[in-house]
Formats: sequence, C-alpha cells, structure tokens
Amino acid sequence: MKQTCDTIFTAAFVVTQNETRTVIPQGAIAVSGNRIAAVGPASDIASAWEAGETVSLDNAALMPGLINGHTHIPMSALRGYSDDKNLMDWLTKDIFPIEAHLTPEIIRTASEFSCAEMMRTGTTAFYDMYMHERSVFQAADRMGMRAVMGESMTHFFPGLSAASEQELRDLILALAEEWKGHPRIKGAIVPHAIYTTGPDFLQRCRALADELGWQFGMHLSETSGETERCLKQHGQRPVEYCRSLGILRPDTTLFHMVDTDGEDLDTIAEAGCAIVHNPASNMKLTSGAAPIEAMLSRGIPVGLGTDGPASNNSQNMVREMYLCSLLQKLDTMDPTALPAQTALDMATRGSARALHWEGLGTIEPGSIADFVALGLDEPNMQPVHNIVSNIVYAATGLENRLTVVDGRILYREGRYLSCDYEALKGEIAAIRQWIASKAS
Amino acid sequence: MKQTCDTIFTAAFVVTQNETRTVIPQGAIAVSGNRIAAVGPASDIASAWEAGETVSLDNAALMPGLINGHTHIPMSALRGYSDDKNLMDWLTKDIFPIEAHLTPEIIRTASEFSCAEMMRTGTTAFYDMYMHERSVFQAADRMGMRAVMGESMTHFFPGLSAASEQELRDLILALAEEWKGHPRIKGAIVPHAIYTTGPDFLQRCRALADELGWQFGMHLSETSGETERCLKQHGQRPVEYCRSLGILRPDTTLFHMVDTDGEDLDTIAEAGCAIVHNPASNMKLTSGAAPIEAMLSRGIPVGLGTDGPASNNSQNMVREMYLCSLLQKLDTMDPTALPAQTALDMATRGSARALHWEGLGTIEPGSIADFVALGLDEPNMQPVHNIVSNIVYAATGLENRLTVVDGRILYREGRYLSCDYEALKGEIAAIRQWIASKAS
Ligand SMILES: [Zn+2]
Ligand SMILES: [Zn+2]
Repeated sequence: MKQTCDTIFTAAFVVTQNETRTVIPQGAIAVSGNRIAAVGPASDIASAWEAGETVSLDNAALMPGLINGHTHIPMSALRGYSDDKNLMDWLTKDIFPIEAHLTPEIIRTASEFSCAEMMRTGTTAFYDMYMHERSVFQAADRMGMRAVMGESMTHFFPGLSAASEQELRDLILALAEEWKGHPRIKGAIVPHAIYTTGPDFLQRCRALADELGWQFGMHLSETSGETERCLKQHGQRPVEYCRSLGILRPDTTLFHMVDTDGEDLDTIAEAGCAIVHNPASNMKLTSGAAPIEAMLSRGIPVGLGTDGPASNNSQNMVREMYLCSLLQKLDTMDPTALPAQTALDMATRGSARALHWEGLGTIEPGSIADFVALGLDEPNMQPVHNIVSNIVYAATGLENRLTVVDGRILYREGRYLSCDYEALKGEIAAIRQWIASKAS
Repeated sequence: MKQTCDTIFTAAFVVTQNETRTVIPQGAIAVSGNRIAAVGPASDIASAWEAGETVSLDNAALMPGLINGHTHIPMSALRGYSDDKNLMDWLTKDIFPIEAHLTPEIIRTASEFSCAEMMRTGTTAFYDMYMHERSVFQAADRMGMRAVMGESMTHFFPGLSAASEQELRDLILALAEEWKGHPRIKGAIVPHAIYTTGPDFLQRCRALADELGWQFGMHLSETSGETERCLKQHGQRPVEYCRSLGILRPDTTLFHMVDTDGEDLDTIAEAGCAIVHNPASNMKLTSGAAPIEAMLSRGIPVGLGTDGPASNNSQNMVREMYLCSLLQKLDTMDPTALPAQTALDMATRGSARALHWEGLGTIEPGSIADFVALGLDEPNMQPVHNIVSNIVYAATGLENRLTVVDGRILYREGRYLSCDYEALKGEIAAIRQWIASKAS
C-alpha cells in the first residue's frame, strides 16, 4: 500500500544538497504539510507515494531554496538611488538623509517588494536587519517568506525607531511577544556594528538576546578602516574586542568579516560563530575580499548574502553565488578555489547555519519544505554537462519557476501567489517618486 | 505631412547612448529598412512619422544592442564541461582533447545555439574566433546576427581546420570570397596568440589581413605567464614584440590586455588599436584585472566581451557589464571607478569600435537598427531611480524582451523568429551526449 502525502513535485533534476550532494536525474519530492516526506527517482516516488496533487516541472532543477544570509530588504526603495560614490559620501550625503524620511509604511511596502524579488529569483529565506523592523516582520509574514530579523541597534538616540535605549528595548520586547512561536519568523538581536555602539551597549544587547532566547548577529570587520578605528579606540582588533566583551557565542552570526586574519578566524571557530559573506557589496563598496577558504578550512559555517539592495543592487542569490566563486578565485589567484559546489553549499547549507535554523538548506526526508526550481529551457542553461556548474556559473536567477516555503507555493511560472504583484509594483513606483521629491 | 517609416518602437525609456548619453522617457524609435530614421519622445515621433507598424513595449528600456567584443561561440557545446581547474590542466586535459573531436556540423549547431543565447540576453553583435569558423559564419548568417569573425590561426599543423599553412590560407581566401559584401558579416584575420605563433607567421597573418582588407585581432597580454615567456623568447614584452613586428594598426583589436603597463598602453594608444576586456574570464581563470581606467584615460577604445562560454559560463553581456564595474572598483579600491554609465558605454560604443563597425552602439538618426528592450516589470528592475544603474547593476539579461538586428526582429517575448529554438535545444542536448561518450 502507498503512503500518502500532499504534493509530489517532479523535475529533470533534484539537487538535494544532502550530505553526499546527491543529484537525482528525473527526480521527485514528496511533501506532507511543511515537511519533505521523501525524495528520490520520480518512478520510485510514484510507486511508493499517493499525492493529492502532482506538480510536474519537466525541464527544471529542483533545489533547496537559496538563503540570503545578510540583507537590509527595505532598501529596495533605494535601488539605484546612489551609486559609484565613496562609502562616506554615499552614506552621509545620500543614504542617511533619505533614510531619515522612511516611514514604517514605506519600509513595509519596500520589504514586501523585496520578498517578491527574492521569491522570484529562488530565495526562500533571509536574515534581515534595518530600522522600523516591525514592518519587515509584517512583510515577511504576509508574503509567506521565512526570515530571521532584528532591529538594527546603534547607541545614537533618538534613532529612527526609538527615542531612547529604553524605548528601543521596550520595542524589542514587544516584538518578541508579538512573534513568539511563529513557524517562519524568528527574531534576532542585531547591534549594527562596533563603530555605532559602545562596549556596555553591546553587552546589554547580548544580555537581551540571552533574556529573549533570540540569536545574535552584527556587522563585523567589514573594512580596514573599522579595524584601524577599533585598534585606536580599544587597543584590540574587532574580533578580539568582541571576544573580550563576551558577545561571541554559537548563536552568533558575523556579517562580512573581510578585514580579518588567521588569529581572528581561530577565535571565531573556537567561539562557534557563523559568518555571512557578501561578495557583491564587498566589491562594489571596495571593502575587499573575505578569506573564505581560510574560514571553511577552520570549520566555520559560512553563508552567503546580498547585503542591502542599495549597494548590490539586487537581492539575487544566484548572482551572488557566481560572484562568490569568481572573487575567491581572483583573490587567491587559484582557479580551483571555491568551486561551484562550494558556492551552492554556502547559499544553502551554509546560510542555513548562519540563520541557526535546523532542517533548512537541504532536500532530504524530514527537512523543511523550502525549495525552488530553476528552469533549464533558457539557452544559458543548456547543455547540461554539470547541473551544479550551470546553476552557479550560467544561471541568472530569473530562470526560477517555482518557490515553495513551508510547503506553500509562493511563486509559480510568473505568478505571485501571496501578493498582488502589480499593485505592489505600483506602490514601489509611487515610493520612488516620493523619495525623489524629498531628495530635491 | 508626415514622413513614412517601416516601424515605430515605443517604450518607457529610450537609452540612446548618443554623444551626450540622452535618456528619453516615454520614447520612440522610427526604423526604415535597416536604419534608425528618428528617435525622440513618443509623442513627437507619432506626430512626425507614419509607420506601417507600431511595436509598443510599454514598461521597458530600449537601448542599443549589446556587442560581445570577444568570444568563441562554438564553445557553448562545452558549457560546464570542465570548471575549477588550473588553466593548463583545464586546457590540456579537458578542453583540447574534446575540441579535437568537434566537427563543422557540431560547431555550426553550437554556434546557432549561442546566437540564440545572445539574442535572448540582449546582444546583437559579436566578434568571434575559433576553429572551423566557416560554420560560425553560416550560423551567424542563418540566425540573423551581426558578427566580425575569423579562423583562429596557430602555426601548429596539421590543425583542426587545415593540414598546412597553405591550406589555411586557401580556406581564408575562400571565406573572403564567400562572404564578400555581406551586410551583417565581416571577416577578420585573428592569429590565436603570440605563444601559439611565431614572428614570421604573425607577419604573414598581418599581410593577409591587408591583402583582403580584413581587420586584425588577437589575444594579447592575457597572463603574466605570457609576458614572462615573451620576455624570455624575444627579449620584449608582448606589446613591444607586436609593435616591432609591425602588426599593430588602427584596424587591430587586442583581446584581454590584463598583464600590461603604462608603456604598453602608450604604444597601443599611439598605434590606434582597440582593446576588449573580459572580466568574467579573467576572474574565473585568474588572469587578473585589466587596468581599464588607464586604457580609457589614454583614449583607447575599450569594448567588453564574454570570452568563450566554456570559461564564462554564459554569453551574457548584461552580467559582464556588472562584473566589469565591480572588478575595476575592487582592483583600484575606488568605489567611484568605472561607474554604470562607463560599463554601458564599453558594451555598446566601445565594443562597436572594437568591431570597427560604423553606425553601431548608439540609437541615433542614421545609425544601424540594432537594438534591444530590457523589460522593467521584474522586481529586480524596480523602482527606477536611475535607468542606467538598473541596467548595469540590477538586470540579469533575461529581462530582454526584444532583439532587433539590421531592422529585423530576431527575438520577441519568448519567441525566436530566426530559428526553431526547440529543435536547436534538442540538437545541443544530443551534442552534449555525444561529447560525454567521447570523453568517457
Ligand atoms: Zn549590511
Ligand atoms: Zn578568448
């Protein structure tokens, strides 16, 4: 007798990303509720499982949903608003002044629009930090995406989200209450960076994370300027400074880690932290090349992220995988560095660990049903000598034809099923016009 | 009274790439035969021109067709066949052995497939060099693409295309006869590189170009290894070696120019040669970063190319523009380096000069009607604060909805009008299977 499941998805390839990185030609995934019940050759699944519905994708590669390990999704409102500037000019003359105008409503709409972009390009989950983050929680919830997120915390008050540290703390306590137990949404305590906080503030952030049982993340060692400033102010390199404050733990994810050395990485490995690499942002803002192989060789979990769409200028994890591999090859001058499989691992298994979320990043019995299907009909995806090579080196992201999060189809063949995309597109255009009026 | 034209194309933006880089909102292009008759605001064009047909693209950006300044299009048959290897292992263990099996028929089919990929992703013209190049001429002709191309010439005989230098010469003379006066196809004499030829052979190549009135191109200064070898063998750097042979002229295009210095570039500027930059290939094969700003500041025409799809692994000029900007920023550690407009200039105006083809690379009255239309409905393309930024930093290439070459529509909204794409896709899959059987 057959076992029953809700839906069977079939495609020319299933890229499982399991322990042995099995690729199943003519494969199928059986889904029950929000979990993967079985995966295997389509003929085996068909003979063992009875499904309410079968979704045949034909010439496509089913794979785990890509996980954007670090972003600021409301910044899609500012895509292309300012480019090609020195970091300080970019931030202080263009980005900060306009961010001061952003309302919770704008941030919610821009976040919903970013969720649409992510599901369109094969991403099912993300780790976000920004201001008015409640709007981002609401957007991720409405759009059906999976996310870890938190209010970006600095010690400058009044801030955009709160007038005082007490108000910020109250806001976060309220968020924790509101989103407790949500199946797709988790909170994080995310201080912005060491140069926008102080040692006591960082320790209070860390204590708040422990109090709430939330994970902890922050930008760290993004640029050499940050390192120099930290050495001058605290007499320590950023990682050593954080270690001595006692804020690095196994629940901690460090975004960037570009300007780092072997001693830093030993410290991070020992503390059990994860790292998220952002090659597009690091190239465009000229932060430099993070030493990924040195991280991986120490067993540090390394995920991949786009950083905000104002500096990327997209939230396209497929493009990010490609850049990740190319940047590492160039930086080490070793063409064997960071092969396609490693880039895909970072965007799936690695980012899952950076989100500290069990059951994500692979297609295996028991894992969470978050997956996507890249179409193979576009000419850049043919022929298929090696499906992982085509996914990392030839795909653009727009090949994606199906996005499933928590067992629910969010996007399929040009249709967005969790939002009115045309309306959202009109709203983001109106926001652009409003921003342009504020800027002039 | 209105003037008459064949077709009027309208769209939300026309990115003209004219001398002043005018962007026309709600713009239109009037086309007569294979030429652009007029361009301007849609309302002005509508009141001045009477067209047999109007193509309304609505939410899209019309722009000059991208020009792939350097590629080896038959290598789409080998996309993903071998990656992540050292250059010499890649070439000698994987690529060369399989290339020896490639027949003129396979090369023609793979070239037609590459033409489909190029028109799909917004490219209208390319500069190719490979073996059995007659098949590439035939493919470009059939597919309706514009191209400059030539047999890749080395002094190793028997070669894949000819048993002796005399036979190679006869082959090229026959090609020149066959393709004389073709409106979309021009021949070039393209010796492979200095390390696969000798000084006398190079001079005979140069003389053949002059004899035929064909332009001249070659790979040059791709790696530091090439420079070292040239210094050892000839006591000169590659550029100086070529200059002293008298083979650098204003009709000459040099592919790569990564390992180069100010003196080289002064020589190239004085000789009036063009350069084609290939950032994806240079990163993936770890050749390094070409000094683009140093080239541009000397007034050297610099185009952009993908190099072959076995090392890219696509022929996507939109992605190449993005990489071009990011690589240059990172290499110079200057975020203001190579802004979006410059990347677009290289892929249009710059590559047009590298193909030595008048009337390409801009949308102006009198220019050749080669243009494309990137759709702006996908979420990565919204909002539009700056259309050039979105094209270079946010687009993937698959947004393209229309490809016009020589006034003829080759691709529109998912339909390939100069080929049976489904049949071609089946043929390239069969070629992959045949290659796999040869390799095992
Ligand atoms: Zn960030
Ligand atoms: Zn080449």
